[in-house]
Amino acid sequence: MLPVSEIIRKKRKGNALSSDELGFLVRGFSDGSIPDYQISAWLMASFLCGMDREETFVLTTLMRNSGKTLDWRKLSSNFRDARFADKHSTGGVGDKVSLILAPLAACLGLKVPMMSGRGLGHTGGTVDKLESIPGFSMRLDEKQMLRCLDEVGVCMMSQSSDLCPADKKLYSLRDVTATVESIPLITASIVSKKWAEGIDAIVYDVKCGSAAFMSDLKEAQNLSRSLVRTSAQAGLKAMACVTRMEEPLGSYVGNAMEVEESVWILRDEYPSELHRDIIAPLRKLCIDLSCEMALLAGTRSSRDQALADCNKAIASGAAYAVFERMLRAQGAKDSWFEELPRAEHQLVYASKTSGEIKKILSRDLGVLGVKIGIGRETSEDSIDPAIGFEILVRPGVRVERGTPLLKLHAHSADALEALSSDLDGVFLIEDDSVPAAVFTGAPASGELLIERISV
Amino acid sequence: MLPVSEIIRKKRKGNALSSDELGFLVRGFSDGSIPDYQISAWLMASFLCGMDREETFVLTTLMRNSGKTLDWRKLSSNFRDARFADKHSTGGVGDKVSLILAPLAACLGLKVPMMSGRGLGHTGGTVDKLESIPGFSMRLDEKQMLRCLDEVGVCMMSQSSDLCPADKKLYSLRDVTATVESIPLITASIVSKKWAEGIDAIVYDVKCGSAAFMSDLKEAQNLSRSLVRTSAQAGLKAMACVTRMEEPLGSYVGNAMEVEESVWILRDEYPSELHRDIIAPLRKLCIDLSCEMALLAGTRSSRDQALADCNKAIASGAAYAVFERMLRAQGAKDSWFEELPRAEHQLVYASKTSGEIKKILSRDLGVLGVKIGIGRETSEDSIDPAIGFEILVRPGVRVERGTPLLKLHAHSADALEALSSDLDGVFLIEDDSVPAAVFTGAPASGELLIERISV
Repeated sequence: MLPVSEIIRKKRKGNALSSDELGFLVRGFSDGSIPDYQISAWLMASFLCGMDREETFVLTTLMRNSGKTLDWRKLSSNFRDARFADKHSTGGVGDKVSLILAPLAACLGLKVPMMSGRGLGHTGGTVDKLESIPGFSMRLDEKQMLRCLDEVGVCMMSQSSDLCPADKKLYSLRDVTATVESIPLITASIVSKKWAEGIDAIVYDVKCGSAAFMSDLKEAQNLSRSLVRTSAQAGLKAMACVTRMEEPLGSYVGNAMEVEESVWILRDEYPSELHRDIIAPLRKLCIDLSCEMALLAGTRSSRDQALADCNKAIASGAAYAVFERMLRAQGAKDSWFEELPRAEHQLVYASKTSGEIKKILSRDLGVLGVKIGIGRETSEDSIDPAIGFEILVRPGVRVERGTPLLKLHAHSADALEALSSDLDGVFLIEDDSVPAAVFTGAPASGELLIERISV
Repeated sequence: MLPVSEIIRKKRKGNALSSDELGFLVRGFSDGSIPDYQISAWLMASFLCGMDREETFVLTTLMRNSGKTLDWRKLSSNFRDARFADKHSTGGVGDKVSLILAPLAACLGLKVPMMSGRGLGHTGGTVDKLESIPGFSMRLDEKQMLRCLDEVGVCMMSQSSDLCPADKKLYSLRDVTATVESIPLITASIVSKKWAEGIDAIVYDVKCGSAAFMSDLKEAQNLSRSLVRTSAQAGLKAMACVTRMEEPLGSYVGNAMEVEESVWILRDEYPSELHRDIIAPLRKLCIDLSCEMALLAGTRSSRDQALADCNKAIASGAAYAVFERMLRAQGAKDSWFEELPRAEHQLVYASKTSGEIKKILSRDLGVLGVKIGIGRETSEDSIDPAIGFEILVRPGVRVERGTPLLKLHAHSADALEALSSDLDGVFLIEDDSVPAAVFTGAPASGELLIERISV
């Protein structure tokens, strides 16, 4: 084996590392025999010189094999003919898709052992949202997981530290060395965890736009292809949807508030026609992604059939019933909905001008959310599950001076004052200074699915 | 100030860092408040994305200011009108230029406070060579340095840990993270130390060829320009000579042996005409570089005059007298020459074929030297000052089967056996498989100076 510095040099010169060399690095990093400063130099060299398909797959394999892996069919004979599927999103603002999609996918005949993370920075996390539910627990032991999957078809878990510990350690180092945004490194991190989950099929929701990790369509397509390709090498059925991430997804941005909004969608009941209108694109995205899971895993053979079954599952109450059963199976109190943390004040932020809403800068809104405790800056920060933003407009609509644009759900009556000037920048109203970028204009349909990528 | 990870990101995106940002990194690295793993990520990003002129100069300044700096004219009124000059070589095989050049430069009216390093890898170091002299010390206090410079005009010191401690620490990290061979980083490391030495003029000997750090002429020219430019920004008079580094410099490769060979050159007395012939190009290089120092510092105004004075200093014995006085001033015993460590056996390695010597692969010879203890692999390794190689041919000459090519000076009669097959690869004899590279053919004149670079 080459000395570590020679392995780094090889990568720095743009050459691919062998699986032995990558294995040596990952194992040495995991057991502490190779110091962090050498690993971070390798990470930066990999970031800037790239990694080829084989290296990406080898790194994925090494991370997956660094910890426990699940094999559902081995764990229970009930699962002999079951199809296990999951969805992974690269993160958005107001992204409560998982909460709606998991029950829908179960209604389409899938088993969904969904593993989620916490929010970080301007994007929210499924774990934070679900943990706002009184009594609900995402730390399940194997027996509990098996029962949930068997009886409900869905279980929602927080990322276990047993799965892919090498990825967890490597991600911490990437986070502080500016080596996160690398397609091969992102790919290895995501696919290793999904692979370890023991699923058959995975749908990637690759967000694209100014509020997404990938603002550039080409980059989002490249990441999609890398995820799908590497998953296929790992033996998973995989496809990716590149989806629009400009305005917030739905009306609510806030942890308990997003749980409530998910219930609206699963029951197809909204507080107002305005809310129904604003939420419609998100509802369609949840259905679209659920259908892709069913098509991929083979529980439905046509998209039309899958779509019809999704709509039926919502209309019949079946989807919401799965959601309720899942909550109870994971410890939620009977009165969980009534007891959801809710803020005492709803403070209206109104338009200061009139014109057409050109853009809602949800990245800025997310950053503002971090400031007030909806989200967190670092993994140590605590959050406030009750507070949040309620969006009352969508791009393309006309507003007058005084039209409510947003409600801040807060604990004090004067909480809006400190945010008011920041909010002025979030809503861009008929202003020629808005640059014409790919994602500037929302499609009139509200369509969020930009492209399906299967190879 | 941006967080460290954002500074790294800025460099990773190819942007120049501000002097505040670089200062923050270097100070944080020096005092331990910024961990090594972030510094190594920045080093790799700087390696791959480059640093502009201003960044290079700022880094140079930060390293220079991290420790003590010398100001000779402030230390002694005797130096009011003195011109201080030094030479720095990027490292070669058999490179004893400093030992000959320093006395010559003193004869041309210069003060030469020369600071040298140890050998590492296939290239030798001036400190190792001089330390083979019984009694000689390179660790001088300020008073001793001043006396040497005042009375002899020369002092030879090992790199003090007081000078540029940040560079020393950074170099250790670069060494293990494959970030050494970067022109801006090399420049900052070299120039900061020469600047801290308090000299007026510096001549860079940038070795170029298969046995040099830079094998490519363009790269050597780029490094030369970067060194000269950054030195000028620091207020130093500077020029660089790109010099050929293919065959070993002179006949001897070995620590005490190279001291002995330096005496031959300073006295212009050689053991044989063969040795005089082989050593002639090295002798000329020492004189050329000494002349450049005098021209640069202004103690001579024409190259012809400087050349004539050099030759006169050798012929009159003045140059050797300076060398002797320097040795005595730094503690060498009266009988130092007789007591130089010498190996008991001189084992002849003869040609196994006949033909013209096309190339002597001195990098391979240097690597072989590390194996037997002439040089060292890591800074912890010890060396044997007595042993070495004596080269008996030069490129362009014809040899017959049985012609001695090299003598191994060793402690045991059978030391050559283990090396014989390795040595077969060092001497390329009339073989069409020798690739025609820029430096393959030696100029008939033996000229080593390829190009002078002043801007």
